[in-house]
Amino acid sequence: MARKRDEAAFAARRSEVLRAAEALFVTHGFHGTGMAAICEAAGMSPGTLYRYFPAKADIIKAIVAEERAETAAWFDRLDGATDFREALMAALAEAIDAVADETYGRLALEIAAEGGRDADIAAILAEAESEARARLTAIIADAQRRGDVDATADPAAAARLLLMLIDGATGTGPGTPPLSAKQLRQGLRRLLDGLLGPVGT
Amino acid sequence: MARKRDEAAFAARRSEVLRAAEALFVTHGFHGTGMAAICEAAGMSPGTLYRYFPAKADIIKAIVAEERAETAAWFDRLDGATDFREALMAALAEAIDAVADETYGRLALEIAAEGGRDADIAAILAEAESEARARLTAIIADAQRRGDVDATADPAAAARLLLMLIDGATGTGPGTPPLSAKQLRQGLRRLLDGLLGPVGT
Repeated sequence: MARKRDEAAFAARRSEVLRAAEALFVTHGFHGTGMAAICEAAGMSPGTLYRYFPAKADIIKAIVAEERAETAAWFDRLDGATDFREALMAALAEAIDAVADETYGRLALEIAAEGGRDADIAAILAEAESEARARLTAIIADAQRRGDVDATADPAAAARLLLMLIDGATGTGPGTPPLSAKQLRQGLRRLLDGLLGPVGT
Repeated sequence: MARKRDEAAFAARRSEVLRAAEALFVTHGFHGTGMAAICEAAGMSPGTLYRYFPAKADIIKAIVAEERAETAAWFDRLDGATDFREALMAALAEAIDAVADETYGRLALEIAAEGGRDADIAAILAEAESEARARLTAIIADAQRRGDVDATADPAAAARLLLMLIDGATGTGPGTPPLSAKQLRQGLRRLLDGLLGPVGT
């Protein structure tokens, strides 16, 4: 019982450190942020911070791991949907909205840049991307077996193009006004009708 | 005549500096590259380099301006095409291939990161993006008037989604194998059939 409480407290504290570090990375960049600044923002001594994250790269790895878990949950919701096509359209619109956020975009940029400098981080990012591609391909292939996707559609190609679309929306946020939520959903619906074949055929 | 030759030599030398700087930015990052290293790589004294680019930020601005001119040329080719739909599919496949290149991706990342730190560069990037959106929207709207795009399609939404797709392919290069050129083209053709309506209706 005490152990469980300790673990929950540790996880909560760890998450606070991650949020504090993210805010600093977004404002000052990954390289412009020192462990001392993270300690100060999280209200933690260097010795304590070390127990959570021995190195700054471990913080990036933890952020990527969290993001990966969120993506997996996003796929789970999609996988269990009764109306597959509607659920896919809504999930895409939701994902595009989420990544378009300016803060998210800046953090994604810092992480991608670090992937170019740190082979460990590059490997983790590549693994997360390949996992997402495999998962979405499987989900579309399942929907195809159920008849929710046209038999002539290519699940791997469709998954790749849809993930490209989400990636391409990253950080486009407030600087890019013209598309309303309604336009986005209608555009996605048309795009999906082509890529996956019209619904109910 | 001599003036003209001088101008051509100046432009050629300027372009050499840009290529040398790009290679350094890709390897060492924008902030990891000093003007001294650019001088050395371009075989030029600091005084001479200054005549071409007074500051490192001017090099980024020149790279973005070149990219913008190339994008405009890409749109020009698309705008004059006889078979609009086939030309659009081919142009998208070509653009996706070009931006997927790893070196291109790293340079794009450096430029985007600098856009987050330098308001001038951010403004130039935003202007280039908004120009691309307006141009592709106009091209699709023209095709719609000619009957090459379904009357119910939304040119602004279609342009935005297609540009997202290209952006999302940036730097995905060699690390992302599974999609063949044929799969990409067939996927794009289906996607366009949905987004813009089937051809010849």
